[in-house]
Amino acid sequence: MTAPVTTPVTTAPAALAAEALIERHRPALDRALEAIRSREYWSPHPEHPKAYGEGGNGTPGSLSAEQGQAAFDALRGSRFELDGQPGTGGWASSEVSPYGLEMGIEYPRPDLDVLLPAMREAMPAWREAGPQVRAAVCLEILARISARTHEFAHAVMHTSGQAFMMAFQAGGPHAQDRGMEAVAYAYAEQTRTPEAAAWSKPQGKRDPLDLSKHFTAVGRGVSLLIGCNTFPTWNSYPGLFASLATGNPVLVKPHPRAVLPLALTVRIARDVLAEAGFDPNLVALAAERDGEGIAKELAVRPEIRIIDYTGSTAFGDWLEAHARQARVFTEKAGVNTVIIDSTDDYKGMLGNLAFSLSLYSGQMCTTPQNLLIPRGGIATDVGEKSYDEVVGDLATAVGKLLGDDARAHALLGALVNPQVRERVESAPALGEVALAARSLDHPDFPGATVRTPVIVKLETAEPGAEAVWSEECFGPVSFAVAVGSTSDAVALLRRTIRDKGAMTVGAYTTSPDAERMIEDACLDECAQLSLNLTGGVYVNQTAAFSDFHGSGGNPAANAALCDTAFVADRFRTVEVRRPA
Amino acid sequence: MTAPVTTPVTTAPAALAAEALIERHRPALDRALEAIRSREYWSPHPEHPKAYGEGGNGTPGSLSAEQGQAAFDALRGSRFELDGQPGTGGWASSEVSPYGLEMGIEYPRPDLDVLLPAMREAMPAWREAGPQVRAAVCLEILARISARTHEFAHAVMHTSGQAFMMAFQAGGPHAQDRGMEAVAYAYAEQTRTPEAAAWSKPQGKRDPLDLSKHFTAVGRGVSLLIGCNTFPTWNSYPGLFASLATGNPVLVKPHPRAVLPLALTVRIARDVLAEAGFDPNLVALAAERDGEGIAKELAVRPEIRIIDYTGSTAFGDWLEAHARQARVFTEKAGVNTVIIDSTDDYKGMLGNLAFSLSLYSGQMCTTPQNLLIPRGGIATDVGEKSYDEVVGDLATAVGKLLGDDARAHALLGALVNPQVRERVESAPALGEVALAARSLDHPDFPGATVRTPVIVKLETAEPGAEAVWSEECFGPVSFAVAVGSTSDAVALLRRTIRDKGAMTVGAYTTSPDAERMIEDACLDECAQLSLNLTGGVYVNQTAAFSDFHGSGGNPAANAALCDTAFVADRFRTVEVRRPA
Repeated sequence: MTAPVTTPVTTAPAALAAEALIERHRPALDRALEAIRSREYWSPHPEHPKAYGEGGNGTPGSLSAEQGQAAFDALRGSRFELDGQPGTGGWASSEVSPYGLEMGIEYPRPDLDVLLPAMREAMPAWREAGPQVRAAVCLEILARISARTHEFAHAVMHTSGQAFMMAFQAGGPHAQDRGMEAVAYAYAEQTRTPEAAAWSKPQGKRDPLDLSKHFTAVGRGVSLLIGCNTFPTWNSYPGLFASLATGNPVLVKPHPRAVLPLALTVRIARDVLAEAGFDPNLVALAAERDGEGIAKELAVRPEIRIIDYTGSTAFGDWLEAHARQARVFTEKAGVNTVIIDSTDDYKGMLGNLAFSLSLYSGQMCTTPQNLLIPRGGIATDVGEKSYDEVVGDLATAVGKLLGDDARAHALLGALVNPQVRERVESAPALGEVALAARSLDHPDFPGATVRTPVIVKLETAEPGAEAVWSEECFGPVSFAVAVGSTSDAVALLRRTIRDKGAMTVGAYTTSPDAERMIEDACLDECAQLSLNLTGGVYVNQTAAFSDFHGSGGNPAANAALCDTAFVADRFRTVEVRRPA
Repeated sequence: MTAPVTTPVTTAPAALAAEALIERHRPALDRALEAIRSREYWSPHPEHPKAYGEGGNGTPGSLSAEQGQAAFDALRGSRFELDGQPGTGGWASSEVSPYGLEMGIEYPRPDLDVLLPAMREAMPAWREAGPQVRAAVCLEILARISARTHEFAHAVMHTSGQAFMMAFQAGGPHAQDRGMEAVAYAYAEQTRTPEAAAWSKPQGKRDPLDLSKHFTAVGRGVSLLIGCNTFPTWNSYPGLFASLATGNPVLVKPHPRAVLPLALTVRIARDVLAEAGFDPNLVALAAERDGEGIAKELAVRPEIRIIDYTGSTAFGDWLEAHARQARVFTEKAGVNTVIIDSTDDYKGMLGNLAFSLSLYSGQMCTTPQNLLIPRGGIATDVGEKSYDEVVGDLATAVGKLLGDDARAHALLGALVNPQVRERVESAPALGEVALAARSLDHPDFPGATVRTPVIVKLETAEPGAEAVWSEECFGPVSFAVAVGSTSDAVALLRRTIRDKGAMTVGAYTTSPDAERMIEDACLDECAQLSLNLTGGVYVNQTAAFSDFHGSGGNPAANAALCDTAFVADRFRTVEVRRPA
């Protein structure tokens, strides 16, 4: 079975020799390995748009802003062909830009009975390549993606609704960082066991028992990536590269409304794989029509042995329950809390929170939803502030931050789908409105739905209020919840994490006792905590190589991006032993 | 919640100071960490019975053979108290020695609503102790177990039916090695991320963004260990110590017929934990009456977040399907194959196979079941041998090996339960008998059921034969299956692994082509392969720190003992970040 597959690799000289790829990417791999151990700041992918393109300063061959725009425009209204991907059973076009831009791109729908066996066929040669070559190929794919960051930025913007700069950074360098981080973890883990070992067991006066042992990292099987609408690259690259680097073919099933960023990714991956002498079917695309729901069919196919999923809790739970032939990694919904106990930088706190609530219209899995504030007020550097004052001042801060329309558009982006708009519109029915949503017209995209955040006041003593704040309300809606005390807030935090999960927890306090209490709650309930953020770091942002995204230990997600547990079970080690 | 629990730790000085424990055990931990990286031979636990006791040579304070026997005898017919284990709801006595020895020991049955909350309460202080202290405490537990290896040997012998020497080695040093291996993996993984990091992100001309980050390894919750009848310590110690070392309390639910070895383990663990100033409820025992089936109730309790299980495929599958609140590690049944293609040491091959089939009456999850032999015969160093000759010579080799009764008893042990005896007795109905089982009377234990192995001839061309060999026939029954060719054997091997799973694969061949074909099959289907074993290493034995037990990638088991995947998901890393 393996012979015919490996033959082309050994006979046809690859355009990209393995040695050259290793030489090119080994330094970055080593640096990434160091970063995930030290957790210090590091990123090889520049954040600034001007760092790309001929006029740029360091990424030769990369697309400039103009070239990226042109490349994106050329894709619109066309059929997105993937050279040689077998088993295409028709074409699907399902994207709707949240900015109203006409996309009209058709993508291949798979014939699974043709495609999946072809992907499995690609495994033995990929296995034989070994962890270092696989890592180098993955980093070459990331390098080519990085060179086209401007093109990806438009693709992410017009599928997720993120503002351009955020689409550029989160969809570009930050996503690429997360992909490289996964490659580093995968490489570290696969090389923990040596390729070979000599084993010699003493037998007293008799000769020792001598064995020669060989260890091979072996992928589990085809890995299914189920992408999401809001972060098509950022949430997908960890799973994609973790699986590919550990020897598994990856079938990419994008969200029907956010296909292009992943289709581009698949095309680049296939190009690199083919140039490096491997079967391009190690990465393939499975597009679908909106509402078709092929993920359910795919997820329980026996060939699928790994699944990465970001999306609703309902479907994540379904996957965990039904796709039992696969190892399932899920990021689902959660309810994120910020406890406001006290602060020595009231203005900084308000500004930081206002930004967190506004960024991408609160459509991040990490955006705070419930702000727990003692109804007796809080101590600050500018005196005691009552609950009403805190909420009012926060509303003012959000209003100021978004007062300038250009700045508001650059922060908010567009609402990703009509359900989010409906949630914003029905928020006033949930309680007293401290800050009402404002509708903005986008200067460049008249079809964009843009809303500023809503803040609703709730009171724990009120019957029915808990039913409101204890459910995820995805989008720019947050609840300023009046609580009896910080202790009550911590008790509510514990319950919320345990029952609903949380991707992030934030807290503001100057009290060591309160800080300890909040930390203990997060340690006990397993949630990531950001304390007293008042500057340019926000609770909803994490940095690859340093921060863990989610904990994997509460209902919001069963995995963290990225740690060893995220990669270690994607491959198994097969041992062959024989007398020495 | 954490304060009252941690108070005793900080106020009452522990009899065993953490520093002293670390000093005592750090060298072994370092050596173990080195061994799991090099995979070279290493074991800190002596295999020879004379290495223990006052007359022994290197384990001061350990029990001698006589002391171990006396300690075991003193336990029989008594109530096994566990000082301070809360929530005991009655007592259970269910053990039946396969040697017919009256056990009559009563063990505590748990009141889960009392015991499980008490175990959870113990977590925060155990978490705060950190990975190094937890590792040192675990290694102290193992050292105390090691000192009582003679006592454990009798306990394992009279619950599993293993012969004394095997119970001593596999139930003693080999099990302790596997426990220490798990501690090493757990420590390595928890210390991969630093406790703290300074993160500084450049901002061009502005000040950098500076954060201080703290990372804490946090256990998932109560870990449930479901023990098995045949290897009560060996199959349990990896999961027990992996969970404990990663911060989780462990509830030990032994097989109702093999309680004593794990009850002793729990008692020692509780003693060490208490002496080290920790809550002894970090390790507790849940005994039950035979047939009571409390594992089903326990497995789905919300407090249970990790499960380790060794046993039947049916219950393993049930656990994977139903205990979805927990991370479930299972070792289930498989069908192990040996392919006999050719050999340059015919006599060595026959002797090695005869030993593998006889050891512990074939009651190991690693014992070969199907011997695939080309019906046209095989090439050997002593000429061509027909299928009939190979089978006949193997039968003769087994007969010779077990010809001396004393030696036979030392190898075979006793049948663990009546189901195995029934299987042996009904084997002749399955095909032509090449070697019939012989019943032996045990000189010391007249109640022991002792049988020599049966070998049954089967023929792939025969209708219905596949139904026989393709199911696990646990016990001393093997099938000599006549196949068309080595290629046919490899095809059958692939199918067997894929459909039924395999803990081990063996093969004999002098042909590089056949060897490559067999290796590829094992790599593709993810099974551990032993080639051309003709000396003192057997396909059914693995060595801790070097060999992986199972692959975790085929239906026989979803985990391997021991690798990173076995430990990495037992804890999560919680990050707390704040402005620097």
